Amino acid sequence: MQRSGSVNKKQYKYDQVSDYVMAMIENGTLKLGDRAPSLRKLSQILKVSISTINQAYVQLEDKGVLQARPQSGFYINADIQCTIDTPKPIISGSCQPRNVRFSKLFEDISKISNNTRIAPFAAAKAPLELMPVKALIRETRNMISRYPAASLDYCYPPGDEKLRHQIALRYSDMGVNVAADEIIITNGATEALSLSLQAVAKRGDIIVVESPTLFSVLRLIEKLGMLALEVDTDPATGINFDSLEYALDTMDVTAMLVVPNFNNPLGSLMPEANKKRLVQLLQERNIPLIEDDVYGDLYFGDERPGIAKCYDNDNRVLSCSSFSKTISPGFRMGWVAGGKHHAQIMEWKQASSTASPSLQQLVLAEFLRSGQYDRHLMHLRKALKFQVEKGRLMIARAFPQGTLISDPQGGCMLWIKLPDGVNCLDLYSLALEHNIGTMPGIIFSATRKFRNYIRLNCGSPWIEENEQAIQTLGELVHSLVN
Amino acid sequence: MQRSGSVNKKQYKYDQVSDYVMAMIENGTLKLGDRAPSLRKLSQILKVSISTINQAYVQLEDKGVLQARPQSGFYINADIQCTIDTPKPIISGSCQPRNVRFSKLFEDISKISNNTRIAPFAAAKAPLELMPVKALIRETRNMISRYPAASLDYCYPPGDEKLRHQIALRYSDMGVNVAADEIIITNGATEALSLSLQAVAKRGDIIVVESPTLFSVLRLIEKLGMLALEVDTDPATGINFDSLEYALDTMDVTAMLVVPNFNNPLGSLMPEANKKRLVQLLQERNIPLIEDDVYGDLYFGDERPGIAKCYDNDNRVLSCSSFSKTISPGFRMGWVAGGKHHAQIMEWKQASSTASPSLQQLVLAEFLRSGQYDRHLMHLRKALKFQVEKGRLMIARAFPQGTLISDPQGGCMLWIKLPDGVNCLDLYSLALEHNIGTMPGIIFSATRKFRNYIRLNCGSPWIEENEQAIQTLGELVHSLVN
Repeated sequence: MQRSGSVNKKQYKYDQVSDYVMAMIENGTLKLGDRAPSLRKLSQILKVSISTINQAYVQLEDKGVLQARPQSGFYINADIQCTIDTPKPIISGSCQPRNVRFSKLFEDISKISNNTRIAPFAAAKAPLELMPVKALIRETRNMISRYPAASLDYCYPPGDEKLRHQIALRYSDMGVNVAADEIIITNGATEALSLSLQAVAKRGDIIVVESPTLFSVLRLIEKLGMLALEVDTDPATGINFDSLEYALDTMDVTAMLVVPNFNNPLGSLMPEANKKRLVQLLQERNIPLIEDDVYGDLYFGDERPGIAKCYDNDNRVLSCSSFSKTISPGFRMGWVAGGKHHAQIMEWKQASSTASPSLQQLVLAEFLRSGQYDRHLMHLRKALKFQVEKGRLMIARAFPQGTLISDPQGGCMLWIKLPDGVNCLDLYSLALEHNIGTMPGIIFSATRKFRNYIRLNCGSPWIEENEQAIQTLGELVHSLVN
Repeated sequence: MQRSGSVNKKQYKYDQVSDYVMAMIENGTLKLGDRAPSLRKLSQILKVSISTINQAYVQLEDKGVLQARPQSGFYINADIQCTIDTPKPIISGSCQPRNVRFSKLFEDISKISNNTRIAPFAAAKAPLELMPVKALIRETRNMISRYPAASLDYCYPPGDEKLRHQIALRYSDMGVNVAADEIIITNGATEALSLSLQAVAKRGDIIVVESPTLFSVLRLIEKLGMLALEVDTDPATGINFDSLEYALDTMDVTAMLVVPNFNNPLGSLMPEANKKRLVQLLQERNIPLIEDDVYGDLYFGDERPGIAKCYDNDNRVLSCSSFSKTISPGFRMGWVAGGKHHAQIMEWKQASSTASPSLQQLVLAEFLRSGQYDRHLMHLRKALKFQVEKGRLMIARAFPQGTLISDPQGGCMLWIKLPDGVNCLDLYSLALEHNIGTMPGIIFSATRKFRNYIRLNCGSPWIEENEQAIQTLGELVHSLVN
């Protein structure tokens, strides 16, 4: 991996430190995203004072090579390719609950998502090529013929018993004791989140969310008249607890909504210890936790990550998820296990949509029961892992210096910081002219702070057109830098 | 038709009047629900003073034989079978916006609706025997095989273009100019109503509804924190305009939600002139009108009734409907043409459920396009008309004196006033012990005023068990009278 000479060699002692660190990066000892040697350790090795090391590190930070993280030290964050990007905690700037307002941009973006002539980097899903299409066709044809009455008649909340049983078994596999009767089938995870928010909060209430967070969640909070309090979130480990505790100490927070596993757009994975700590923290303060796990089954590692619900002693976690990211978005099948808020959620479900479609519930119940879902997931995870890693490499090659790329451990999205000064909306418009979809970072926060970020979907296989589109996209970013 | 002697013969002049009227009823000249002779006319015939006729009529009203309607005169409302029931205007009692509160009763009732061992009088739908099951199975199998991508992928709002086009054509048939782009596909009419209410009103706002009105609408208003203002509604002609104007004059009303065609539970049909007048009235006061037309296609007469949207000059009507009552409740397919509120509804739809299921949209579009829907409706209407009329007769024979039965011109429901003192909840519990479902009238108003009313569904064909169940139900009502 080559580095451009953005660090000048000078005679000062702190230059020695810079050179030493740069050499470690260039020879591969320090990888991008790694923690830099501690001040104390480097002071011993180089035999210079801690304050000199600190001076050098600050200089390297100014140049974009290192990045300081609160209570954690310095990390390699160079203006070269393929590093983990950590946004600064927004708590140090302003942490105000926001009345989220979004413009027509949403409408435009949702239109391009379904346009097949546009390179599919804007969506947040795997394409149908990776979905179990044949099996779903077969099971759908099968179920409606075998069970016409159940397929066509109302399936009142909480929904199909067999499907809820299968979902309960999956909770059990994660060590969580959720009975089928505690699960309510919803119109995708979006409805699960909507019902959950309405069950625990009302107009004007403050909801803590990660930052960046999915724009549709921000929009939902906006529509419900609630206020989104965006808390700094690390692309690797999820929500920052210093920022979170500060927010909880200083604001009257009503509820919290997080995506601990492969948060969209960051792809961050909250360590199990943090999930446990999060639940405890909210338990102490008697705040309900709405957890969205739609990407949880799409892990790249050896084991499925746990969920916050695993650490929930007093039923305060509202566990939401769906099959939209793993099987079929058009099925609109999600669920919520609402814990102590179950009855309230049932009331909201009955009042606002009466029931969920019946046929898809029957099909999914059978798809899970027969083991087809788990076999499909194995293939899907493998494909997505390969595609995301390949995407990172291609972007790293095509995009200019100053680009930072996230390193997700699951899901199918990359979160990319463009070089300073490149506006995501300029790139969005320019890319669209070339029939390339991108998701502008600006819509992932009500504060508009991710102006030079984009989210790219790597869910689609790297066919030649898409590889070419990444090349073109890189050239466009280059053109915006100059 | 026999009458019991509830009017004693006395020597007073006004007794002559009573006797005269009772004789006209007994010999069939005056039918139940007919208007009694005017005071002036009877004064001429019997050669007694108008005040004496009036005294006699008031006496007959006290005895339950006649019923006074404001600005309209006296109607035959005797304690005998098969009459049109007109509740008193609630405006004369108290007309307060209500914070609707419902108990566990809802949960219980929704459980019995899907229990096939219970006689199906509680639901508000036709059974699958009357639905186009074979055609839906065929089209579903067909569409998912031919269009797997469209069936399984997101179909973002406003929804499938072909389906919206078919719905636009149906508006056109009613003389309404609604373009496909002005229609949003929803998760049944319930979601259409929910999105519409949220688009035009907020927490604390007053929504005018008919009384009685469907409990799920009251519940929805309750959940949204809005206040339901129940306005007296005639079982034959729909909302009472005196009551409505009084309500609009004295309250700060934000929106109105009505079911002009075959209102559930009344089955009332608002005359076209009244629909026009309603829209004008609300236009003058700049109040949006949410119209629910789920039963509109189920008319018993020769022509499909119009909708309020037909008389809408300035796009203030939010026209909601679904295919749940005509094709398949489990498909969960509804829509809203939101007029000037279209953009707001789109935002709510996107925020609260992302999209509606794709496959059912494709199936319905084809079912409508091919003409199968209209052919099916012809059969369905014929069956329901027969069943409802037979149901009226059977109930009239089985239930005790003092029972009043509505005479709907469409749909599948009967609204029944039980003899004074019979509590609908007592009957509900007692009937359930005999595996007979009934819908207690009390849940059709937040004021709890319909204590001695029930709604019975005549959607199911009169198989012997159901006929027997009506007999049993009649005996149970008899037992509660004594």
